[in-house]
Amino acid sequence: MILEVAMLTVHAGQERAFEEAMAQAAPVIASARGYLRHELRRCVETPGRYLLLVQWETLEAHTVGFRGSPAFAKWRELIGGFFAVAPAVEHYEHVLTWPEKKS
Amino acid sequence: MILEVAMLTVHAGQERAFEEAMAQAAPVIASARGYLRHELRRCVETPGRYLLLVQWETLEAHTVGFRGSPAFAKWRELIGGFFAVAPAVEHYEHVLTWPEKKS
Repeated sequence: MILEVAMLTVHAGQERAFEEAMAQAAPVIASARGYLRHELRRCVETPGRYLLLVQWETLEAHTVGFRGSPAFAKWRELIGGFFAVAPAVEHYEHVLTWPEKKS
Repeated sequence: MILEVAMLTVHAGQERAFEEAMAQAAPVIASARGYLRHELRRCVETPGRYLLLVQWETLEAHTVGFRGSPAFAKWRELIGGFFAVAPAVEHYEHVLTWPEKKS
């Protein structure tokens, strides 16, 4: 599993509308091949700042599959207008989970 | 639940030792009151860059409870020497999880 980590900054005053748009956009990203789950979180310290965490089966499921799909255009259409700065997107691989999973 | 998000940058060449130290330090943070779980992830794009995600029951469990405890001194002792720059720590509250949990 690869974790997509996107740091998002939303125009002041548009936080509530952004959160509603993200709820509307959730099924769009969830329809992508290799998508596992995602969550949106609001920064306590900085208004307008959000963290989007998306779990993908592989890096390419996001960078090639989703980004090259019609669903991505729809996703951007729904949420792209809210960003005050371009989203900073990185990918992270697993090192350690605690408590350790018994599997 | 509050998510602590720490962006970590480790001295070049010390990645393996840092990961081992984090495994050793896991029970230390896990012993804190209000701690729920945590994970460490390695950035795919940038060598030496890590993301630490810690779930706490409340913001204060981290900022007051853990940081003011003897366990925090032990935690810092085990991992503090690895950082090339000071960790960037923020806290995030829940907005949206998908698929939605049935609870």
